Amino acid sequence: MALIVQKYGGTSVGTIEKIKKVAGRVARTRDMGNDVVVVVSAMAGETNRLLGLANQLSELPNERELDVVASTGEQVTIGLLSIALSEMGYPARSFTGFQIPVLTDSAHVKARIRNIEGATIQSALKKGEIAVVAGFQGIDETGAITTLGRGGSDTSAVAVAAALSADVCEIYTDVDGVYTTDPGICSDAQKLERISFEEMLELASLGAKVLQIRAVEFGMKYGVRIHVRSSFNDNTGTLVTKEEEIMETAVVSGVAYNKGEAKITIVKVPDRPGIAAKIFKPLSDANIVVDVIVQNVSVTGHTDLTFTVGRSDYKKAMMTTETVAKEIGADKVVGNDKIAKVSIVGLAMRSHSGVATKVFETLGAEGVNILGITTSEIKISCLIEEKYTELAVRVLHKAFGLGKPANA
Amino acid sequence: MALIVQKYGGTSVGTIEKIKKVAGRVARTRDMGNDVVVVVSAMAGETNRLLGLANQLSELPNERELDVVASTGEQVTIGLLSIALSEMGYPARSFTGFQIPVLTDSAHVKARIRNIEGATIQSALKKGEIAVVAGFQGIDETGAITTLGRGGSDTSAVAVAAALSADVCEIYTDVDGVYTTDPGICSDAQKLERISFEEMLELASLGAKVLQIRAVEFGMKYGVRIHVRSSFNDNTGTLVTKEEEIMETAVVSGVAYNKGEAKITIVKVPDRPGIAAKIFKPLSDANIVVDVIVQNVSVTGHTDLTFTVGRSDYKKAMMTTETVAKEIGADKVVGNDKIAKVSIVGLAMRSHSGVATKVFETLGAEGVNILGITTSEIKISCLIEEKYTELAVRVLHKAFGLGKPANA
Repeated sequence: MALIVQKYGGTSVGTIEKIKKVAGRVARTRDMGNDVVVVVSAMAGETNRLLGLANQLSELPNERELDVVASTGEQVTIGLLSIALSEMGYPARSFTGFQIPVLTDSAHVKARIRNIEGATIQSALKKGEIAVVAGFQGIDETGAITTLGRGGSDTSAVAVAAALSADVCEIYTDVDGVYTTDPGICSDAQKLERISFEEMLELASLGAKVLQIRAVEFGMKYGVRIHVRSSFNDNTGTLVTKEEEIMETAVVSGVAYNKGEAKITIVKVPDRPGIAAKIFKPLSDANIVVDVIVQNVSVTGHTDLTFTVGRSDYKKAMMTTETVAKEIGADKVVGNDKIAKVSIVGLAMRSHSGVATKVFETLGAEGVNILGITTSEIKISCLIEEKYTELAVRVLHKAFGLGKPANA
Repeated sequence: MALIVQKYGGTSVGTIEKIKKVAGRVARTRDMGNDVVVVVSAMAGETNRLLGLANQLSELPNERELDVVASTGEQVTIGLLSIALSEMGYPARSFTGFQIPVLTDSAHVKARIRNIEGATIQSALKKGEIAVVAGFQGIDETGAITTLGRGGSDTSAVAVAAALSADVCEIYTDVDGVYTTDPGICSDAQKLERISFEEMLELASLGAKVLQIRAVEFGMKYGVRIHVRSSFNDNTGTLVTKEEEIMETAVVSGVAYNKGEAKITIVKVPDRPGIAAKIFKPLSDANIVVDVIVQNVSVTGHTDLTFTVGRSDYKKAMMTTETVAKEIGADKVVGNDKIAKVSIVGLAMRSHSGVATKVFETLGAEGVNILGITTSEIKISCLIEEKYTELAVRVLHKAFGLGKPANA
């Protein structure tokens, strides 16, 4: 007898038949005596269809209105899943972002959740209903519809689980759990039984694609145990939880990569105090997230400054940066949107020296040029040309002994 | 310099190209110095697609959830039209039913508007924005999403016009206005310049399909002038207005028909006081609208009772009626869902005798059997077998001299 939040992504609810299957799984969980809250995404392909319509009208559509359009995808799914559950004799009630409400900031297209009111859902549960919640969406203070950005339904699910103090948040996806790396690149990649929030945070932010970064942040902040598992079978997946709950600790837990990167370099920036703020404020004002920043040491009073952004922000970021470059008297701006980032992540890196050296040697031995480096306590990331991505992942996965034993 | 509400139906916004054209027309109206509020339907085919998804899950889908699904169609259109207007440099802001809010009762799938708050739209107009409003949808007191039923966007538009005291409500459609009958059946049908609310009410309720009945009721109640016109040209259409504004009055203004009818007969109903209430209360409880009621005079202490319902309610109505029939000890229930209603409408019928006789003679001369009759001050309707519909319309249109002169 527990309160379980289940989240089903777009591929899990991609057809009417799949929605029926999800309803069946939800019903089974209910039959075991649990209270169930289901968070769903739009049916696979639907969000792209909607954004495609908007893009036929404008290259950079008004983002407030884009959210009005995009948020309908999840609304359709909650209605359909509730109909399927009712048809099976399970009372169900759908909730949109405004009905709960899920309060967010006003950063359209990539809003952040500020608060979720648990009372309306709780009163449905008390009546014996299954609550079916639209992921990805919320409203801001003015009542405008907002969306959380790609993958935002994971965040919705974990935030709802936090608001309701749920026992576990199950994230159903089309993979069995979190792997040491992408099995599409390394066939000997292994499923991890457990992983800490901290490691998952680095893996998610680096593009492991299983779980959205903000979902992990919410989980860590509010101590929500997240169970990542497959919607196609009943196998145990990967439990994302507190470090204390992790037993064995390999030096490196996984190798992640992200191809969706773009690199922008401002050439000959005058080296004055306050210049960095001048450059990055317009970008943050435009809601562009800057990732890696590399600045060369200044010798001549000028410096080259390089940073990366998500590839979808590349055009907007280039325009913004070119304006700023003129204002501050820099020489020019050059960009490259064919950049990838490869990273290794592991809690035990803290207590093991020589990990960085091993990374650089491994990549160097294969002739992969490193265009930038960032590190944290539990992560080392290298920017490389996109074409080397698969090669880099494979050699690092092997170098740190992450593959299954050959006879396994 | 006026406040104009414009409503565009599904065919007018059926493709991205058509949405651009609508944006162009809205912009022209704005350029003339008018404040503009646009009310839109779902893109043509979209509502059927959404209902089709729901029907794959259930034959009688949960209606609360059906509204959640169906209301997304209009939400997509308001977002897209606002994006199109913004792209052209016209500030625009979309409004869903809950954002305004449009308060309705809780009769899902066919809710009625109780109140529209004008303040949020007015504040957008004050800022110089074009307000783009989702037709067809509202919320009830509990915050549940409701829809007004097929054609409900007309009602939304006129109700919004009433709430804002707009100068005119323009209903854009794929026809040039209101005709003396369906030009698809009578090629010599003529466009009416003006028509009274009362006549339009009878025509709309009888299936003229140009304008929804509740929209006309709202127009009449709040004195909103409704201009029905084509979205494909700039021609003046038909003005629906107060009787005082109508000049010439033909005896009969138009011939309407409705094929979407079904007839239910309860055989051998015990003739006791209160029996009619027993029969019709369960139907109204199920939100089924009963139209024509015919009861034979009782001789033997039993009577046959016949009534019609919309064809979409037929199954539900039969089930409900069969239960009631058992309870009251009636003999049996028989139904026929292939019924049509043909009607003639005209203000001047009040002062002309012999109109009914002419209708019966005209139909009788063609061998069309009349299965039931209802009349009002300005209307005569006959139930007939559906297969005779076109024939009946043609002979009545001719008998009352409604066609264009042969040389026109």
